[in-house]
Amino acid sequence: MRFTFPLLAIGLEVVMIVLFALFVQYETGPNTSQKPNSTELPAMDPDTSMDSYPHFQDVHVMVFAGFGFLMTFLRKYGFSGVGINLLIAALGLQWGTFIQGIFRKHGQKFQIEIQNMIHADFSAVTVLISFGAVLGKTSPIQMLIMTIIEITVFAANEFLVFEVFLASDIGESMTIHAFGAYFGLAVAGILYRSRLKEGHPNEESVYHSDMFAMIGSLFLWIFWPSFNSATASDAKKQYRAIVNTYFSLAASVVTAYACSSLLESRGKLNMVHIQNATLAGGVAVGTCADMEIPPYYAMIIGSIAGVVSVIGFKFLTPFFTTKLRIHDTCGVHNLHGLPGVIGGLASIITIALEKSDWTVVVSQAAALGSSIATALVGGLITGVILKIPIWAQPPDEDCYDDSVYWEVLYSVKDVYDDYTRQSFAHHMSRCLCAS
Amino acid sequence: MRFTFPLLAIGLEVVMIVLFALFVQYETGPNTSQKPNSTELPAMDPDTSMDSYPHFQDVHVMVFAGFGFLMTFLRKYGFSGVGINLLIAALGLQWGTFIQGIFRKHGQKFQIEIQNMIHADFSAVTVLISFGAVLGKTSPIQMLIMTIIEITVFAANEFLVFEVFLASDIGESMTIHAFGAYFGLAVAGILYRSRLKEGHPNEESVYHSDMFAMIGSLFLWIFWPSFNSATASDAKKQYRAIVNTYFSLAASVVTAYACSSLLESRGKLNMVHIQNATLAGGVAVGTCADMEIPPYYAMIIGSIAGVVSVIGFKFLTPFFTTKLRIHDTCGVHNLHGLPGVIGGLASIITIALEKSDWTVVVSQAAALGSSIATALVGGLITGVILKIPIWAQPPDEDCYDDSVYWEVLYSVKDVYDDYTRQSFAHHMSRCLCAS
Amino acid sequence: MRFTFPLLAIGLEVVMIVLFALFVQYETGPNTSQKPNSTELPAMDPDTSMDSYPHFQDVHVMVFAGFGFLMTFLRKYGFSGVGINLLIAALGLQWGTFIQGIFRKHGQKFQIEIQNMIHADFSAVTVLISFGAVLGKTSPIQMLIMTIIEITVFAANEFLVFEVFLASDIGESMTIHAFGAYFGLAVAGILYRSRLKEGHPNEESVYHSDMFAMIGSLFLWIFWPSFNSATASDAKKQYRAIVNTYFSLAASVVTAYACSSLLESRGKLNMVHIQNATLAGGVAVGTCADMEIPPYYAMIIGSIAGVVSVIGFKFLTPFFTTKLRIHDTCGVHNLHGLPGVIGGLASIITIALEKSDWTVVVSQAAALGSSIATALVGGLITGVILKIPIWAQPPDEDCYDDSVYWEVLYSVKDVYDDYTRQSFAHHMSRCLCAS
Repeated sequence: MRFTFPLLAIGLEVVMIVLFALFVQYETGPNTSQKPNSTELPAMDPDTSMDSYPHFQDVHVMVFAGFGFLMTFLRKYGFSGVGINLLIAALGLQWGTFIQGIFRKHGQKFQIEIQNMIHADFSAVTVLISFGAVLGKTSPIQMLIMTIIEITVFAANEFLVFEVFLASDIGESMTIHAFGAYFGLAVAGILYRSRLKEGHPNEESVYHSDMFAMIGSLFLWIFWPSFNSATASDAKKQYRAIVNTYFSLAASVVTAYACSSLLESRGKLNMVHIQNATLAGGVAVGTCADMEIPPYYAMIIGSIAGVVSVIGFKFLTPFFTTKLRIHDTCGVHNLHGLPGVIGGLASIITIALEKSDWTVVVSQAAALGSSIATALVGGLITGVILKIPIWAQPPDEDCYDDSVYWEVLYSVKDVYDDYTRQSFAHHMSRCLCAS
Repeated sequence: MRFTFPLLAIGLEVVMIVLFALFVQYETGPNTSQKPNSTELPAMDPDTSMDSYPHFQDVHVMVFAGFGFLMTFLRKYGFSGVGINLLIAALGLQWGTFIQGIFRKHGQKFQIEIQNMIHADFSAVTVLISFGAVLGKTSPIQMLIMTIIEITVFAANEFLVFEVFLASDIGESMTIHAFGAYFGLAVAGILYRSRLKEGHPNEESVYHSDMFAMIGSLFLWIFWPSFNSATASDAKKQYRAIVNTYFSLAASVVTAYACSSLLESRGKLNMVHIQNATLAGGVAVGTCADMEIPPYYAMIIGSIAGVVSVIGFKFLTPFFTTKLRIHDTCGVHNLHGLPGVIGGLASIITIALEKSDWTVVVSQAAALGSSIATALVGGLITGVILKIPIWAQPPDEDCYDDSVYWEVLYSVKDVYDDYTRQSFAHHMSRCLCAS
Repeated sequence: MRFTFPLLAIGLEVVMIVLFALFVQYETGPNTSQKPNSTELPAMDPDTSMDSYPHFQDVHVMVFAGFGFLMTFLRKYGFSGVGINLLIAALGLQWGTFIQGIFRKHGQKFQIEIQNMIHADFSAVTVLISFGAVLGKTSPIQMLIMTIIEITVFAANEFLVFEVFLASDIGESMTIHAFGAYFGLAVAGILYRSRLKEGHPNEESVYHSDMFAMIGSLFLWIFWPSFNSATASDAKKQYRAIVNTYFSLAASVVTAYACSSLLESRGKLNMVHIQNATLAGGVAVGTCADMEIPPYYAMIIGSIAGVVSVIGFKFLTPFFTTKLRIHDTCGVHNLHGLPGVIGGLASIITIALEKSDWTVVVSQAAALGSSIATALVGGLITGVILKIPIWAQPPDEDCYDDSVYWEVLYSVKDVYDDYTRQSFAHHMSRCLCAS
């Protein structure tokens, strides 16, 4: 960490500046660029492109405050949760702007519009999802490397999905959420630490860390309609994406609460489910959010996603850890992986029921398959690179602990707390006996 | 709680899906629906309806993050404060969409616009206000039942106020704030627990829980201009509602601080006042926010509301608890009840000073009376239903404690804290003596 | 504090109401007012002025939640950090509305538009920056006085910069950030407490207080593009200001992380740097954000600002405290002062490279000089007034402690924590020996 991290970070920033100097310019004339999720060529006046700005800001809140605080649930890993999230996203949005522009313009100079900034934030989200799978077990250096590789693979898959298959994925359930989750799971599988199979004393939340995580969860929940509608190609589709996401999310809250209570002992609610599964409706409705589905259909998708997500946390995550040797710290498979796949399947069903043209169905299926396949291959390769023991990986005993990479002045309370975890009962009984 | 809660929640979600399948569709043609708070028929192009979307998102933040975190001030009830808030609002917005649509379209199929989503969020706010009055003393099951009943009564009163009386209440000071507060007080009166008259050891804040509550308070404060202007029927009224709310809120902050310092011992500030009374200006200016009042008039309304609200917390809340046998956990009477009534009265005075047509004054007075009366009747009936001892009510000793309904891993610190509340001094003196 | 504070606060609010009654009205006709940062006269239709509203709300979040929570990093000063921030801003925006209107309309009646509200929020920001320099060492009374004086000087300097020098400063790097920082440093210099030279036991953060501060830091970071573009005179400039700020901020995050790790012992990251230096890119790009600079130029500015800010925290702040007898609690010199000066210099270089007309370069230099000079003079005078020992200043031993001005129910944990700071090791060893 001593010199590798600062030199790598500064080196990457210098590379970004050089690449931007060579390839990036402002929007200068009428906007004729093709949007990734659209086959139309809107002939917008550049002045009107400010229309997307409120959507951009909502997405921006989700990326930095939403994902950042969602990952602060561990009792000793809040600085890293919110801090490394910021670092990944800040680097990722620069690299994402560049690599998406290059793919779209086939290597020519390209312009920046508000829509590019939304897409750049989206590319960062992919890495943040994968970050959730390896949270607490990797170094900042590893995350810088993962950011660069993952966004490159992501942009390639997006190019395949939108430009080659001409598939539809407005909320990017497949291309962001499923992709990010399976990429992260592949990396986590390669980086598996068998000594931590039985759990780690730091890998738990405390009351206040769960409250901080709720900040993230709520801002994600609130702005998800903006996420799913931000890149819509016309106002009607945008309006439908907003309404469908709104109701899908509401439905997934109700079923997630019900399912959490049903599966926990004595009918209690589990904070992990509430923080995560309530968002599953936003992921799952993403692909068909802008299609002509009635609101009740969105609510059915959300309801199913809420249930599946809680079941995933309860049964799949322990199974993955112990049997598949894949340890998924935040349970991104349950929040992004499964609901992302549901999103893809829902779009296939929707289109199959509506259209006679089966090529559209096939292109959706190809998009889902491509997203999962490129994610797994990309994740496995990335995992192998990150496993090289030169990236300041934390030792097993220091996992999930900010103090490895941060100056932490733990309060006396916290030190005392750790002390008492071992000796509280023992010591108190002695003290009381003695007196 | 074991099966009643999950089955009730899932049952309600199924009912919502069926009702939406039967009654709800998208906005398909030009928007000709009548807005609840307007007697005009704007002939908007559906594409332009996205204009309200930033306002909607601001209101959405208030409902989920604002009200949610405002109710996390109790030291052991943060999960429920923010979590049950989310559950109520997610169910409430679905039911509110349906019941408001039915009232407006007289039982016919209706369409969803962004304005409907704003109104649905508003209907959820009513329940969240009442939730504040009974916070810590009810079960999630009771809250699901209250959500359904209260929003039904709320929609009926809204129909009376806007369609029958043709009254004006842009920020819904009367129809949301006064209504929600008096509904909640009536429920709290019926559910009164005389054993808790002297207070409960859990019914207090700690330093960090007060900080979390400030997150909620600030986001409510910041976005209140959007709340009061979100449903304006034209841009001029919307602009006036924004400006008036902005200055009324600022004024209520200054007077709330002054009054808190004046009434507390040794001139100190009280966090409860700061979290709540600073918002009173937003409530009180609500009804006449879009009227042609000069900004200084809005500042006078805000100043008065800030003072009245602090006085309410200091003198009325204890009086209500001990004499009227109504225990109002969050003091919603001081934040929503009294300022809501001030809002109604301010509108009556404003109109009386401006207009010769006394029927308008009468209709405003009827709106205020109707809002309070339906709230009290509705609340009393709801209270009686909730008192039936089959809804998993928490026993007196477990009030204001998350661990009744949530899996809580209290940290060793917290356990130790509780332990030391009883024996700290005693034990330490012994230990020190012994050594 | 007993009566001075409430009477002063109420007195100021009454003055505001009277001034607004005399001078302030609504926007009534077509908007022909001159914007402070523009020499053009846009002939907007008043109905379209709602265009700035989403920008206003973003700025509003920064002022109240962003600055508020950023100042909650001290372990015992969170209530004051976020609470006094609210008080200052609420008073400041009223006074700012008035004094800016008077300067702009040369003492005539003036109208309120959304743009005025943005400028009023901006004037409050100036005081909040200075508040950071004296955080923990002043009373609420002193802050009320500083608010009135500082905003008056600020409006006078703004008038000079924009109306006399006709300089350009879209994100107000010079007029807000450098001004606020040097004003605060001058006040802090006069109020220097030599007994606190060696530090104060309360002047440190704990784990959770650093997490609360990150809420503020992130919301500032997220919405900074809105801050720098909110007052743009046309859509093209607004668009450029957004894009440049977006990339400058991202670059400053990467270099701030690199530099923090490079300068701290064993390559660790320091939370103070992350909370503050990541924002330096937003400050530094402010002045030339709307100019025709390519994005990579914005990234260079951001990169430099991130580095300079961390170096400032590491070396300049201790130097200021011990050698210059200026104690800057939040390090506003590193976040606002130096990056603000960089912003001014960057604009001078940009214009010098582009234009042959050297009068524009001179006017930018005059703006930078005027902002620093008026800030220093204004701050020194304010400091002398605040030093008069009648404003309930906290005694040295009670600095950085909420309980001087707030009712604080410290939890048993906190009391115990303080107790153990002195006797933990000593007592435990004895106890264990005895048993």
